[in-house]
Amino acid sequence: MTTAPLRVTVWGEGRHERLDPQVAEIYPDGMHSTIAQAIRDDSERRTEVRTATLDEPEHGLTAAVLDDTDVLTWWGHIAHGEVDDEIVERVHRRVLAGMGLLVLHSGHNSKIFTSLMGTSCSLRWRRGDDRELVWTVAPDHPITAGIPSPIVIDQQEMYGEYFDIPQPDELVFISSFSGGEVFRSGCTFRRGKGKIFYFSPGDQDFGVYHHPHVRQVIANGVAWAAPSERSDRQAPASHQSEVGWFLEAGRSHRATSPHSS
Amino acid sequence: MTTAPLRVTVWGEGRHERLDPQVAEIYPDGMHSTIAQAIRDDSERRTEVRTATLDEPEHGLTAAVLDDTDVLTWWGHIAHGEVDDEIVERVHRRVLAGMGLLVLHSGHNSKIFTSLMGTSCSLRWRRGDDRELVWTVAPDHPITAGIPSPIVIDQQEMYGEYFDIPQPDELVFISSFSGGEVFRSGCTFRRGKGKIFYFSPGDQDFGVYHHPHVRQVIANGVAWAAPSERSDRQAPASHQSEVGWFLEAGRSHRATSPHSS
Amino acid sequence: MTTAPLRVTVWGEGRHERLDPQVAEIYPDGMHSTIAQAIRDDSERRTEVRTATLDEPEHGLTAAVLDDTDVLTWWGHIAHGEVDDEIVERVHRRVLAGMGLLVLHSGHNSKIFTSLMGTSCSLRWRRGDDRELVWTVAPDHPITAGIPSPIVIDQQEMYGEYFDIPQPDELVFISSFSGGEVFRSGCTFRRGKGKIFYFSPGDQDFGVYHHPHVRQVIANGVAWAAPSERSDRQAPASHQSEVGWFLEAGRSHRATSPHSS
Amino acid sequence: MTTAPLRVTVWGEGRHERLDPQVAEIYPDGMHSTIAQAIRDDSERRTEVRTATLDEPEHGLTAAVLDDTDVLTWWGHIAHGEVDDEIVERVHRRVLAGMGLLVLHSGHNSKIFTSLMGTSCSLRWRRGDDRELVWTVAPDHPITAGIPSPIVIDQQEMYGEYFDIPQPDELVFISSFSGGEVFRSGCTFRRGKGKIFYFSPGDQDFGVYHHPHVRQVIANGVAWAAPSERSDRQAPASHQSEVGWFLEAGRSHRATSPHSS
Repeated sequence: MTTAPLRVTVWGEGRHERLDPQVAEIYPDGMHSTIAQAIRDDSERRTEVRTATLDEPEHGLTAAVLDDTDVLTWWGHIAHGEVDDEIVERVHRRVLAGMGLLVLHSGHNSKIFTSLMGTSCSLRWRRGDDRELVWTVAPDHPITAGIPSPIVIDQQEMYGEYFDIPQPDELVFISSFSGGEVFRSGCTFRRGKGKIFYFSPGDQDFGVYHHPHVRQVIANGVAWAAPSERSDRQAPASHQSEVGWFLEAGRSHRATSPHSS
Repeated sequence: MTTAPLRVTVWGEGRHERLDPQVAEIYPDGMHSTIAQAIRDDSERRTEVRTATLDEPEHGLTAAVLDDTDVLTWWGHIAHGEVDDEIVERVHRRVLAGMGLLVLHSGHNSKIFTSLMGTSCSLRWRRGDDRELVWTVAPDHPITAGIPSPIVIDQQEMYGEYFDIPQPDELVFISSFSGGEVFRSGCTFRRGKGKIFYFSPGDQDFGVYHHPHVRQVIANGVAWAAPSERSDRQAPASHQSEVGWFLEAGRSHRATSPHSS
Repeated sequence: MTTAPLRVTVWGEGRHERLDPQVAEIYPDGMHSTIAQAIRDDSERRTEVRTATLDEPEHGLTAAVLDDTDVLTWWGHIAHGEVDDEIVERVHRRVLAGMGLLVLHSGHNSKIFTSLMGTSCSLRWRRGDDRELVWTVAPDHPITAGIPSPIVIDQQEMYGEYFDIPQPDELVFISSFSGGEVFRSGCTFRRGKGKIFYFSPGDQDFGVYHHPHVRQVIANGVAWAAPSERSDRQAPASHQSEVGWFLEAGRSHRATSPHSS
Repeated sequence: MTTAPLRVTVWGEGRHERLDPQVAEIYPDGMHSTIAQAIRDDSERRTEVRTATLDEPEHGLTAAVLDDTDVLTWWGHIAHGEVDDEIVERVHRRVLAGMGLLVLHSGHNSKIFTSLMGTSCSLRWRRGDDRELVWTVAPDHPITAGIPSPIVIDQQEMYGEYFDIPQPDELVFISSFSGGEVFRSGCTFRRGKGKIFYFSPGDQDFGVYHHPHVRQVIANGVAWAAPSERSDRQAPASHQSEVGWFLEAGRSHRATSPHSS
């Protein structure tokens, strides 16, 4: 039935790639372009993918762009503090109104993620030489379609527990690292009408966003987080209601129902 | 992408309709036929719907039928004890292997539901003259698409708390009754690879399965509970694994990945 | 074993009682005093209860006061916007560090609650003449000890769904109202090391905080939300960890353990 | 306030210790005796601990014994099939009525655990030479009091995902193994009025039940799983209720409440 393409905006901080030649070598067009291509490459869905970065006006996240976005992905690291509070608030409202959100790797420390979670989102970390194994704990979840368990990532930054997040609505992946640490690396949350997927594999120093399984998880996550086509995309708001306010709305339906005759 | 129709089996006890002329008047072809038609009437999906009843051989739930079933719906009331334990076990295994299951109304007391929940599934009830209001508490959940909040059901049996179930993975609907009772009337659970939706509105004495919103919720629930097309439909089982068993499987992927060069 | 009394701070906005003679008649010493007394009256625990209000310096919530607080209760309504952001941030950090928090009635709209939840916490409401019934859906939860199901509250403001909160870690109470609405009126959440209990019954215009069952629920909730005596009361924070950092810490234990000899 | 000691029954299969001299050397009085002593050694609570084993009449779990039991712990492995279905059903009803249950290690495959979970409880395993690290993901949970994160267990059987259980109400521990696997090794579930804690570390071939941290977790788990002293210890059951049945019960309270005058 669904024919409209999924409209995705891939947001990237875009700083490491300019400041660090080693990162630029791994991601010559920026991590955001690599992530955007992963979503475009997904053969299972039609998508329209754009990118936006910190140094654009309004960080590239104008009201018009968000109006045209079903799912936003977020990668940031060294410049979380430079993201304007007003833009964060704008994105936050959109999520509550139904826009999907993928928060990637070091985005755990972003203003948008911590304000949606209400916790510190702090964690243990090590920039070392760990191998990460990403294990599926929610088989047949749409985010895991076509993904082996475990995903093997030869080199990766370690992210370990305690990860200070609310209990996820669904725990999808748990990772282990060579050093022995574990991490809840794939977690879903519903906030308002919006669906949020946090996925930790991905880093500026290692080419993790070129890994085919990591790319497939991101594409799957985008599809999972999309609002339904019927969504009114209105954020929840308080309403004052008279006694019996719902009776009028229900009447036409009941009148045509056999059981009320 | 999805083109295969959803294969649905609607199971009904089929006794009230034969024993009670008043029920037969409301549901001349049996409740199962009315429920089956609700699913067929759904304009959003292609479905192939069959029915099965208690008094057929193997209750109509042969291995061949279940092989050909993506989602099973279950309505029973006065003959739960007549359902063969072997058939219950067969259905149970299929659910763990990914078959979706909708449990309707008095099905809360069925062997299949209590064995999947591990609790008594007991509740408070009154065969009276209550109005039921069904409120959505999970907006934008696919099961609620196109459904007003509340659904107004003019006459219905009261089901009230305490409803002895495990905490649902998602609480979708809460009902109130004229008498003041409340009930968690729409609940989802994942067990193994299978998705389960319990939905309480529906009764043999009132024509609730003719109510257009109740019909839409059932059709939505069937679509939600369907396994993915990629599902292997194998029930989880224990495996003995050697050290490093996963490395071979992961190698081809890593070899073709830019990041490992 | 526990002998230290539970240190409780009851925070009240304290405005209605001064501005509205009708409220002052119901709560001559302020709602906060009535709530504080409910906690002191609890025969099951030793408590030390103080109160604090909006118009005190730092809203009465200095660092010293919070250092001496195991559980904070929060009631506000017409002056949420006057609460200083810095104080909110201070309380927020304390909750993540293990301080318990009870959010009462119209506190759903407070800055501290919305910032901990990450959602709008909006709801449906009616200042009418409803009877509220508060049903237990978590039997044997410590918050429900000694509480009948339902609690009958003859006159109360209606709070109804959709209540825009994250899925609670535990759903303890569901209310119905004469008008037919339902509400998740008792919900627990863990954030960081802190336990949070939202409980909606309670209002400035009706004497709900004199209701013996409402008083007992609040006292139970305070006891439930208390941090353990062994808690270090440190908020979670990110840590950089070397490979094998945990081995040294574990050694003494393993050396004395029979299994390692 | 609580003065009555906690009545604990430690159930053990008791076969390995008789059949395998190596196990008998590690646990000369049986694993159940070692586990029982761990609970008695807990300095934080007063306990009365007895043991029961498979080969006693009624497996040592007579109605009288269960009447006198607040928390039952369960360890079995090679003889799950020999446990009488009637005894399993008896224990199951007691759990729903409020008796706490700890399921240890290979007890994941026991009839009592799978019937309470409704899933296969299957998992990945390896009898090898792994080191297990047990990480806390629920800081300040009473089960983790006094426990370092991680617990280091030098030698242990590997238990790995996918572990086929319902989503736990609380995920308390996640383990990693030298081989790279991960496991949800500490999980809580509420079923009926009963609290259940599954904890995987522990084995017949390695002396894990001598490990001081494992012993402390078990003692903490027993205390956590205990029913409240006020519990009526009745299993939930269905009730037929007249309209307004709750008004009479609520009246006395409301009559003495200031707000109803």
